[in-house]
Amino acid sequence: MKPINVGLLGIGTVGGGTFTVLERNADEIARRAGRPIRIDVVADTNLDLAKKVTGGRCRLTGDAFAVTGDPNVDIVVELIGGCGVAKDLVLAAIDRGKHVVTANKALLANHGNEIFAAAQRRGVTVAFEAAVAGGIPIIKALREGLTANRIEWIAGIINGTTNFILSEMRDKGLPFAAALAEAQRLGYAEADPTFDVEGIDAAHKLTIMSAIAFGNSMKFGDAHIEGISRLDSSDIKYAEQLGYRIKLLGITRRAAQGVELRVHPALISARRLIANVEGAMNAVLVKGDAVGATLYYGKGAGAEPTASAVIADLVDVARMLTADPEHRVPHLAFQPEAIVELPILPISEIVSSYYLRLRVEDRPGVLADITRILADHQISIEAMIQREPGEGEEQADIIMLTHQTREKNIDEAIVRIEQLPVITGRVTRLRLEGLL
Amino acid sequence: MKPINVGLLGIGTVGGGTFTVLERNADEIARRAGRPIRIDVVADTNLDLAKKVTGGRCRLTGDAFAVTGDPNVDIVVELIGGCGVAKDLVLAAIDRGKHVVTANKALLANHGNEIFAAAQRRGVTVAFEAAVAGGIPIIKALREGLTANRIEWIAGIINGTTNFILSEMRDKGLPFAAALAEAQRLGYAEADPTFDVEGIDAAHKLTIMSAIAFGNSMKFGDAHIEGISRLDSSDIKYAEQLGYRIKLLGITRRAAQGVELRVHPALISARRLIANVEGAMNAVLVKGDAVGATLYYGKGAGAEPTASAVIADLVDVARMLTADPEHRVPHLAFQPEAIVELPILPISEIVSSYYLRLRVEDRPGVLADITRILADHQISIEAMIQREPGEGEEQADIIMLTHQTREKNIDEAIVRIEQLPVITGRVTRLRLEGLL
Repeated sequence: MKPINVGLLGIGTVGGGTFTVLERNADEIARRAGRPIRIDVVADTNLDLAKKVTGGRCRLTGDAFAVTGDPNVDIVVELIGGCGVAKDLVLAAIDRGKHVVTANKALLANHGNEIFAAAQRRGVTVAFEAAVAGGIPIIKALREGLTANRIEWIAGIINGTTNFILSEMRDKGLPFAAALAEAQRLGYAEADPTFDVEGIDAAHKLTIMSAIAFGNSMKFGDAHIEGISRLDSSDIKYAEQLGYRIKLLGITRRAAQGVELRVHPALISARRLIANVEGAMNAVLVKGDAVGATLYYGKGAGAEPTASAVIADLVDVARMLTADPEHRVPHLAFQPEAIVELPILPISEIVSSYYLRLRVEDRPGVLADITRILADHQISIEAMIQREPGEGEEQADIIMLTHQTREKNIDEAIVRIEQLPVITGRVTRLRLEGLL
Repeated sequence: MKPINVGLLGIGTVGGGTFTVLERNADEIARRAGRPIRIDVVADTNLDLAKKVTGGRCRLTGDAFAVTGDPNVDIVVELIGGCGVAKDLVLAAIDRGKHVVTANKALLANHGNEIFAAAQRRGVTVAFEAAVAGGIPIIKALREGLTANRIEWIAGIINGTTNFILSEMRDKGLPFAAALAEAQRLGYAEADPTFDVEGIDAAHKLTIMSAIAFGNSMKFGDAHIEGISRLDSSDIKYAEQLGYRIKLLGITRRAAQGVELRVHPALISARRLIANVEGAMNAVLVKGDAVGATLYYGKGAGAEPTASAVIADLVDVARMLTADPEHRVPHLAFQPEAIVELPILPISEIVSSYYLRLRVEDRPGVLADITRILADHQISIEAMIQREPGEGEEQADIIMLTHQTREKNIDEAIVRIEQLPVITGRVTRLRLEGLL
């Protein structure tokens, strides 16, 4: 089937990631979308960079407006950012009847009302999953997954730079300036970090979520915004003593008299899941009246996580343009003709780490016998504790954690261990999942 | 616009929740879906219960097959459960050209291949968000939100009953049987708990997620399933000493030779977010090659959380039947004509708890002055710590956490506190969010 042709505006970090992932996962994406999605043309002012990233496998141009008017282009992906030329390009693409995918939160928070109205009139869609929380499909959750609910509030860690800085301040007791420098050194913060550390980026994202949650128009200008640059590390320390963590939160809440829309550092009980979101990760907590609290967690920035959201939007549009409406989303995500028969592995073939508990007679040489058997089966031990027998007992518990091994190896080793005369009863075996 | 008419099969816990939420949030749901969604007819063998729950506000019948053939019904919602009559009803509804929404994981894990093929042939959709992880929109995330990714693995806490039991065993040091009895007393476990505690329910849900993740057909019969009934509380204790929690996990992973599909208790590092999912909550961790690890957390069961997912599917179908394809999902979730202008509250009007740090001269009566001012402004104190002056210092830090109050109250109080002669410098004020 004829591919969907994408015109990509901007081949920076996210643009490069989008190009890479679309190529690498082309087969899998086509099986889901019903047809291939390919980047037909890339526009960037830096043509050398564009040539390097794309390897000459698509057309290049320095004229982004030529892309928005290109009859060969089905969808325009805007990854330039900001409210300058990006706005003109998005409106030009809409005007030419192109669907648009954008990651541009500043543009939507400031001019979304105008852009969506234009798209509505022209019969095209402007998709923007990548504008909020990177790869986390939070826009889809809010617009489609939680439609039964009266949304009560949203609280999100939606800026990875500030969350990284706050984690550093807490972990290492650093003052703000030192943690910021570390974030800049590692590439988590830009040379001019104002947009991130003063909460403006988070407020853009929050504005978009607030509008969707409450059916309100975009009101970025009315948001209350405080950043973290004046946060004192002593407050982080005191908060911790009281059982709290300090996070930069974006909060929007439906109150009796209106809507709260605010970004600021806040204390959260350390027992809450969201308080334990560390480093550059993002998380959004959504409270609905029917569903209760739901949380969405993942990488909020970076080339491929953001590309994941851009491409999800491309697949959405491709499915809309391809399938009959009833089967826009295939039952099993992949088109029926693309479902394969992958065998399920027998449990003996899986690879895992293991927890072993052995009850042994407390005499010399026991451990040597056990570790010898494990070594014979190429099983290495990561940790071990031995609980000495209590008073009047003659048996000790040995607990071992192994490195990864095939399950049949561990089971064969256990059969041999259980034959040792010093072992009492059966060996307890549990799997240990690193989730890596 | 003409309402979407739903035929509801089964008015038990989830059916009742669906009826309640559809009525309570009728306006909000219609603003999102583009037209009202109403339950036109309910079928249940217990007509007295049906009458009580619906209050006579829809038609009732004891004959579920009459509903599947009812020309007035647009969508059939199957909430009977199991693989008996529910299967015949779903196939009958498909045969009559009805769209189907179901929460029936057993049915889909065992007969999904047949059911989806029938729906595909007949040109209808079978939606099943409620079949996995209750109100968490994980099916939507997998089928639509993560389509860019080659999914590497999924690991989920997808049975609330067993997670509650494991939390009780760990918190209170209870053996399995006692924790199960407690779960039964609180309504988290059924009289016959086999499906939950032996991992079968989790395996149904995992089978569905695995098929969607890897484009595989449903292979429930090949799943490896172990429950928690033989788990010894000493292992929970030893795991904790080593820095791990034991959870009943559903794991599916793409390996070189095939797909892992397994449910069993497993140790997870306590530092992982998913290890801290306690009580009857669910969470699903999905690893994609582009997005990295994403986590989805919420209530996995219960009347309204599950109804949230059922109704999200109803809205999906209603949007498909209502809007032009380009605007199936409105840009801001609500139909453009339903967007309202809700005012954003000034920050002085928000309600929050507060953290205050005051630097004071260390002399008697200081605290009395401060607490008097707070009391004058109706601000009550939840916790306080005082850091005595270090050697050679003359000033102490007082840290206070307040109960909820309006921000203008706290700001007025701070102005007065800063005028006290014993206060040095400015008062530090941070918001404390209970997220309730």
